[in-house]
Amino acid sequence: MTSPGLSADETSAHGLLRLLAARGETLAVAESLTGGLVAAEITATPGASKVFRGSVTAYATELKRDVLGVDGTLLAERGAVDPEVARQMAAGVREALGADWGIATTGVAGPDAQDGQAVGTVYVAVSGPDLESMRGYADGGARGKVAALRLNGSRSEIRRESVRSVLTLLLEQLSGERAENGRAQDTEQNGGN
Amino acid sequence: MTSPGLSADETSAHGLLRLLAARGETLAVAESLTGGLVAAEITATPGASKVFRGSVTAYATELKRDVLGVDGTLLAERGAVDPEVARQMAAGVREALGADWGIATTGVAGPDAQDGQAVGTVYVAVSGPDLESMRGYADGGARGKVAALRLNGSRSEIRRESVRSVLTLLLEQLSGERAENGRAQDTEQNGGN
Repeated sequence: MTSPGLSADETSAHGLLRLLAARGETLAVAESLTGGLVAAEITATPGASKVFRGSVTAYATELKRDVLGVDGTLLAERGAVDPEVARQMAAGVREALGADWGIATTGVAGPDAQDGQAVGTVYVAVSGPDLESMRGYADGGARGKVAALRLNGSRSEIRRESVRSVLTLLLEQLSGERAENGRAQDTEQNGGN
Repeated sequence: MTSPGLSADETSAHGLLRLLAARGETLAVAESLTGGLVAAEITATPGASKVFRGSVTAYATELKRDVLGVDGTLLAERGAVDPEVARQMAAGVREALGADWGIATTGVAGPDAQDGQAVGTVYVAVSGPDLESMRGYADGGARGKVAALRLNGSRSEIRRESVRSVLTLLLEQLSGERAENGRAQDTEQNGGN
């Protein structure tokens, strides 16, 4: 984790793009703490434009509402570092950029705590068409999956690990592994909490 | 240029954020070929949220129109790799994300040519409030400055150099150097062409 972990991330991004291209599906990204790194990782791969629609980095909290459609009351009550915010970011960017899949990151990269949340508190989310057949929820219409992370390390390490985690979450959805059980289950969040 | 050039880029991003914070001004980023790298570079700096509003990676051409407000006829006639497209991306993201300054990148990172433009053809642009006092133009309202680049190297090198160039262009504007003359002048594009 002291290195940027590029080879692992690139493997994930490559695999992701290959899987999506084979399915004829597209991807959009919403970022907060990763601040562009997820999109940069994806677009490092030649030919990414076949699959990747684009991304929104909503660093200012109100842009999560205004551009991505995250509920303003939710943001006011819980702050930006919240599993339901992550879920709505993923659903919102999917809608705003017209993609089949949306993925999102929100959390605290440090060095300071934010919105009462400790450094290393991160939520990553995926929203996509195939999730309708899984156990989902329908508060606000969009379905999704969220993973809660507690990361250690420097600001750079927390950001890199968040990139890796959100790509892995989407890969797991696409590959159908762990759809109803397995490693991701204990970190899954329902949107209603 | 074979290394990612992180230290130079980080110096630029640090200096940029320091200057903008001192002026009490904010920044938004629109990206195409850099695909998130400009935003990622800026947000690598702790405290970036004081200045950085957010970014849009408009990788799909129609998102340059739909999200950033780039003229659809212009895109249809000239493609996405064009100085006026870069200028409108910078002005558009400044408006869309409510920032004082907007910067943008568009170009061909390779390995294949795009829209009839060779690999390494890149345009970077800045749009901001201070430019009204400079020689500008008013087709569509926004004022801006564009630099044309012809870059060599790998996809990764072209992307990294594009990041460095757009940050440098904004730094030059902020520092007031080369405002009316100097190195950047010969690459300046008027918007009306």
